[in-house]
Amino acid sequence: MAIKPIIIDCDPGVDDAIALMLALRSPELAVQAITVVAGNVPLALTQRNARQICELLGCPEIPIYAGCPRPLVRSLITAEDIHGKTGLEGATLPDPTLPLQTTHAVTYLIDTLSTTPAPVTLATLGPLTNIAVALIQKPEIAEGIDRIVMMGGGITHGNITPVAEFNIYVDPHAAQVVFDSGIPITFISLDITHQVLTTPARLAAIQGLGNAVSEVAAAVLGHYGKVDEQRLGTVGAPLHDPCVIAYLLRPDLFTTYRGQVQVELSSPLTLGQTVVSQSPGEERWVDIVDTVAAAGIYELLTQRLANSAAPLPNQNGIE
Amino acid sequence: MAIKPIIIDCDPGVDDAIALMLALRSPELAVQAITVVAGNVPLALTQRNARQICELLGCPEIPIYAGCPRPLVRSLITAEDIHGKTGLEGATLPDPTLPLQTTHAVTYLIDTLSTTPAPVTLATLGPLTNIAVALIQKPEIAEGIDRIVMMGGGITHGNITPVAEFNIYVDPHAAQVVFDSGIPITFISLDITHQVLTTPARLAAIQGLGNAVSEVAAAVLGHYGKVDEQRLGTVGAPLHDPCVIAYLLRPDLFTTYRGQVQVELSSPLTLGQTVVSQSPGEERWVDIVDTVAAAGIYELLTQRLANSAAPLPNQNGIE
Amino acid sequence: MAIKPIIIDCDPGVDDAIALMLALRSPELAVQAITVVAGNVPLALTQRNARQICELLGCPEIPIYAGCPRPLVRSLITAEDIHGKTGLEGATLPDPTLPLQTTHAVTYLIDTLSTTPAPVTLATLGPLTNIAVALIQKPEIAEGIDRIVMMGGGITHGNITPVAEFNIYVDPHAAQVVFDSGIPITFISLDITHQVLTTPARLAAIQGLGNAVSEVAAAVLGHYGKVDEQRLGTVGAPLHDPCVIAYLLRPDLFTTYRGQVQVELSSPLTLGQTVVSQSPGEERWVDIVDTVAAAGIYELLTQRLANSAAPLPNQNGIE
Amino acid sequence: MAIKPIIIDCDPGVDDAIALMLALRSPELAVQAITVVAGNVPLALTQRNARQICELLGCPEIPIYAGCPRPLVRSLITAEDIHGKTGLEGATLPDPTLPLQTTHAVTYLIDTLSTTPAPVTLATLGPLTNIAVALIQKPEIAEGIDRIVMMGGGITHGNITPVAEFNIYVDPHAAQVVFDSGIPITFISLDITHQVLTTPARLAAIQGLGNAVSEVAAAVLGHYGKVDEQRLGTVGAPLHDPCVIAYLLRPDLFTTYRGQVQVELSSPLTLGQTVVSQSPGEERWVDIVDTVAAAGIYELLTQRLANSAAPLPNQNGIE
Repeated sequence: MAIKPIIIDCDPGVDDAIALMLALRSPELAVQAITVVAGNVPLALTQRNARQICELLGCPEIPIYAGCPRPLVRSLITAEDIHGKTGLEGATLPDPTLPLQTTHAVTYLIDTLSTTPAPVTLATLGPLTNIAVALIQKPEIAEGIDRIVMMGGGITHGNITPVAEFNIYVDPHAAQVVFDSGIPITFISLDITHQVLTTPARLAAIQGLGNAVSEVAAAVLGHYGKVDEQRLGTVGAPLHDPCVIAYLLRPDLFTTYRGQVQVELSSPLTLGQTVVSQSPGEERWVDIVDTVAAAGIYELLTQRLANSAAPLPNQNGIE
Repeated sequence: MAIKPIIIDCDPGVDDAIALMLALRSPELAVQAITVVAGNVPLALTQRNARQICELLGCPEIPIYAGCPRPLVRSLITAEDIHGKTGLEGATLPDPTLPLQTTHAVTYLIDTLSTTPAPVTLATLGPLTNIAVALIQKPEIAEGIDRIVMMGGGITHGNITPVAEFNIYVDPHAAQVVFDSGIPITFISLDITHQVLTTPARLAAIQGLGNAVSEVAAAVLGHYGKVDEQRLGTVGAPLHDPCVIAYLLRPDLFTTYRGQVQVELSSPLTLGQTVVSQSPGEERWVDIVDTVAAAGIYELLTQRLANSAAPLPNQNGIE
Repeated sequence: MAIKPIIIDCDPGVDDAIALMLALRSPELAVQAITVVAGNVPLALTQRNARQICELLGCPEIPIYAGCPRPLVRSLITAEDIHGKTGLEGATLPDPTLPLQTTHAVTYLIDTLSTTPAPVTLATLGPLTNIAVALIQKPEIAEGIDRIVMMGGGITHGNITPVAEFNIYVDPHAAQVVFDSGIPITFISLDITHQVLTTPARLAAIQGLGNAVSEVAAAVLGHYGKVDEQRLGTVGAPLHDPCVIAYLLRPDLFTTYRGQVQVELSSPLTLGQTVVSQSPGEERWVDIVDTVAAAGIYELLTQRLANSAAPLPNQNGIE
Repeated sequence: MAIKPIIIDCDPGVDDAIALMLALRSPELAVQAITVVAGNVPLALTQRNARQICELLGCPEIPIYAGCPRPLVRSLITAEDIHGKTGLEGATLPDPTLPLQTTHAVTYLIDTLSTTPAPVTLATLGPLTNIAVALIQKPEIAEGIDRIVMMGGGITHGNITPVAEFNIYVDPHAAQVVFDSGIPITFISLDITHQVLTTPARLAAIQGLGNAVSEVAAAVLGHYGKVDEQRLGTVGAPLHDPCVIAYLLRPDLFTTYRGQVQVELSSPLTLGQTVVSQSPGEERWVDIVDTVAAAGIYELLTQRLANSAAPLPNQNGIE
């Protein structure tokens, strides 16, 4: 498997942080940049959290760009009830010395995706504001994107409302722009991530690794998603964003089918719902993740977090 | 258990017909009237089908009232793909001699529910147009209704659209009027009825009964729901409406929880969706059916259809 | 001009009361019935007000039917700020001895319009709930209606919201049902009625008549619409409902054009707006009143109110 | 009056072209840049038209930036029926030699408005996509904007639909972002511009000037707006965009009042309507233009077009 160049667009957030750990410990992926958006917590915190995690992982060479501090049309809502006030509740990481890039994430995306010699994969873990704004400004960047693998939406239920998932609900208009773009999309919804629960045994396996990174992972996961557990009545909370990285590393852990996704933009009752249909005649489709081998995801995550070594060489380039 | 007075509002329809058979063969229920509405097929057919079934069952004393031929606001849509052109595909029943009442179903409902000495249970098997129009004309009739046990809506999915169920989608405004009425409601959604499948073994049991009624039941069920089976990939089709009658006879076959139901009225994408939430502080709730013992439903149905005798005494009154 | 049989559907309300006076003092119109709906004030008051006005006019033979106490889908809103707490602020009329009919207005409309030998004109002065419910129950009654002359809607502005007029806003769904019915409609909007102002000179002319009816008219008009005057910055308030009766008596005081009317049903911001378009190819249209000779309306009204005699013979029949 | 620094955001378009002529011939305004958006015609044409006009006016030093080729959420619609296939029907201007800036208009707006020593006035003549995208990316730029003077919207009627005006209808979401931004706004709607008609006498006055610029103005105005004239039944078509520049030059030709503007985003029927209200308690308002002295606008335009001299010194700076 060739090393896959990716850009991660995220709003850390506990599960974003775990996803970043998984990506940055995986030599199959060349993380070219991390672009950050407002979502789980405001932008001032999501960009700080991204820098802290990169620094923890020993990846100072990965550029981090701050993007949009607000959704396209709606006012920002955040999810401190899930991720804590800082967005990384449970961890006390040092102030990051790794600097933020001075270029805006949207400008970076436009410039990079307009000129990239080979299309890049976008792993999107938060509201799709940055990607949508880049597409609105310069629709041709779609050609520079190999595929978007997205955590967002729900098929049979939501989490922030009965029918809407948080990432899409925060910026439903951005999501619709992305679904309308014609870019190949892999859609990982709550229906999948709610099967990937942080059970005590899985957390214990991570806790047992005993390196600096795994200890932070265990700490934040220990605080994460108590609200979800209570609401869902599950043992363990859904671990959303790492599924995107896991899909890039091990697509064999998932199955998909082709369908269409439309985002509810007009009704307050169902705002942000992702309505999935399968219209036989439609020429445009989204690859909708249908099943997941949750145990495999945790094995992969635990294995990669076990690697306590310094960052792998060539992380930021393809050789 | 005292004999329970009920009015059945329906749009037969194959599964409505089976529900009528179950009700009319059950001495625990005193069917005071059947009110008919447009839905699965147009009103001219639903009223005819209701009369044919009553005649087949030997219940000429039950008055049948034709109601609204169209929904409150939307244009009528029908479901001949599921129920056949007549609404009772598979059966060839004689022209009914049993007359239709000359009073409109809405007038009957208003008059009866305004003056009933004891509140009556409404079993609703189709679009809620008749009930809603009666409530709009005379809201006080709510006092004459003990409870509405309703087949309609979906929680995690729809059948006529990805998110909307047929009965509610046909007349979403009527459904909202009913949910707003404050009448106690038991809500039996697709999430339940899709567990109550017409498997070959269950159909065979009915076919084996060998009486006049069971033969018609077997004939229409043999044609019913092929489209659903194909779409859902199930063995057997969901048998929706008999669940309402089964609930009245054997509530122990079901469990319920309390929640709120809102109907999507404004967005074309999600029109007719029933959004179920559980708001802790809400004083008004719907009893949402949560689980069903499907085998028990078919045992009950088969047992009652086995009774080939003439109609039970006192069917149309409480003594 | 042959005597025109009409049914007046209204929600008195001051301007409804003036419209009733105008109709009942005009021998060209045979008022077959008055049907009453909730609107300006709740139904208990609108029906009482209608009876008081009929009694004042000496028309005990005109049957008055109470209709729907609430709109189709929305909750009732009322307009006591315009019409006062009783709906007839300024007048103190005796308790009516004239009885309310026991039949529901909707039942009356259905029965009458199904069997009328000649189509009847409906003059609608309030929310269209009664008409819509009758059409939903029995769409064939459209054949018994010659034309609906309607006060409702606004083309360039509203009064209850910036874009919605009160009668339509109270029950926008009912209005859409009526516009969809195919019945010939004459549409008299705020754009017309805001030209028909209760100026001091016009009120003085009525005050000067000095008979029992004109004194009540002057009294209620003296209290009416102060809120409107202040909001609009006009001298005098718009006199809406009498325009409908004036149109029936003197169509030469108005001009019309053909257009289409659609009612906004989905957005809270523009709910109840009547959007008027002129689509060249459309086969179905509404006759939209374009201009009015306001002075002529007040001359007509003053002249008819001047007739202090007992009610005209044959008021309730066509000869 | 000090020279006012402005940025013109436009989608030329005939009336945009006239507005540019008026601005570039007015020494009171220092046009710092022209940013271009898709609207009346696609971006490839609007940017070309802007360059042609600047070249015609002899203003090669004014930088022209191309912006967004599409609205935020909706698909682009254009208005060739009004402006001709090129957007400047009637004129045959040479291919422009004046280059387009390589920076994106949104980037230019963000960079300039983030660092400007004194707030700049934005004159917006088209869909508000560029401004909205800049505000989404970096909300702080609001501080660099003194005021937005906007042509867009309608209060009592629309032009592209019965209730929506073209600029807002093309990108209603962008308009809402701008209205939500808290930036001081002067709102010039169709209710104003429909009073500023291109009558034969007014066109003749421009035609009589006999210089290179006035001849192009006369040529494009001679072809402009025939569809509007026919639809509206007016002599002459509404001249929308020059009103914005005229307001900056001669605010005494206009009166304003304070109100709130909300954009309809959810309903297809009323999409893009600008609903104007006057809520007494609201702390945030828009300055809504209430009246215009149309003759004064044309006098101003004719006078400035009469100046056939080379461009004025210091056009692109404040000294």
